[in-house]
Amino acid sequence: MILVNTGNGKGKTTASVGQAIRALGQEHTVAFGQFMKRDNQAGEQYMLRKLLGDLFFAPGDGFLTKPEQFPKHRASSEKLIWWAKERILDVDMLILDEALYALSSKLITREELEELVALARNNDTHLVLSGRNAPQWLIDEADLVTEMKEIKHHYKAGIPAQKGIEF
Amino acid sequence: MILVNTGNGKGKTTASVGQAIRALGQEHTVAFGQFMKRDNQAGEQYMLRKLLGDLFFAPGDGFLTKPEQFPKHRASSEKLIWWAKERILDVDMLILDEALYALSSKLITREELEELVALARNNDTHLVLSGRNAPQWLIDEADLVTEMKEIKHHYKAGIPAQKGIEF
Repeated sequence: MILVNTGNGKGKTTASVGQAIRALGQEHTVAFGQFMKRDNQAGEQYMLRKLLGDLFFAPGDGFLTKPEQFPKHRASSEKLIWWAKERILDVDMLILDEALYALSSKLITREELEELVALARNNDTHLVLSGRNAPQWLIDEADLVTEMKEIKHHYKAGIPAQKGIEF
Repeated sequence: MILVNTGNGKGKTTASVGQAIRALGQEHTVAFGQFMKRDNQAGEQYMLRKLLGDLFFAPGDGFLTKPEQFPKHRASSEKLIWWAKERILDVDMLILDEALYALSSKLITREELEELVALARNNDTHLVLSGRNAPQWLIDEADLVTEMKEIKHHYKAGIPAQKGIEF
């Protein structure tokens, strides 16, 4: 199955993490990769490393803000694509957090993602993709798509990101 | 902070579980209660018990289908409300999964939930509530509300609930 968590609201990454925990609890094997986000910053990264060991990988350099950083970000994203292509053959579930943000930022290509989708289908691996801006071809291809829609966010009331809540 | 995961889509429970994992990774203390759902069925229940011990509690009897079962379901829900009122004083984050489903099914009252919200505010405990049909008073009171909106679901293609995906 191909599962997609998209939208502008909070909950895409946490839903992906919760999906990993659910699958682990059923003794499925899970690999979890994160695009763009720097490692060793968010609470879920510490926990996923503890629970998954080498099956957790977050080689990102943070969100892309300056065009001149593009090559470095592309190199990190490519590393994760290669890692994912190997892991997808060995696990029951592969989760790629922020894959859709990486796609809309052109750090990965549609062809790279399509290849992973095809590998998931051929190997009966569940593939979970998260991030804003899911493209229509992926929505058409996916089995399940949820839009996390922001109804209300404390950022707008001036409350900044908090440890344990946003990271 | 009061956080709400609502809507008709998949991802409310997994986002709540992921939020627990994120907070644990930041060494926060977390209590996780589940209304209605039976224990020892879903993958996240096994994992949460392992990670949280007595700070995980799921006394539910399944979703309410027959009116004559109401008193039994109400008793289980009341047990969880009492548990939550004690735990909320001791932890950094209290998560009550399906609290809003329990509310709209009248298994818990608005007053009971308002008391927990007030306790969370007074004790600076983060309170995460999930379930369909978040009422307007709670949306007004909450700091963050996400609607998990179903864009596409494989149930509609005739694919049933799968271990590690839905439970």
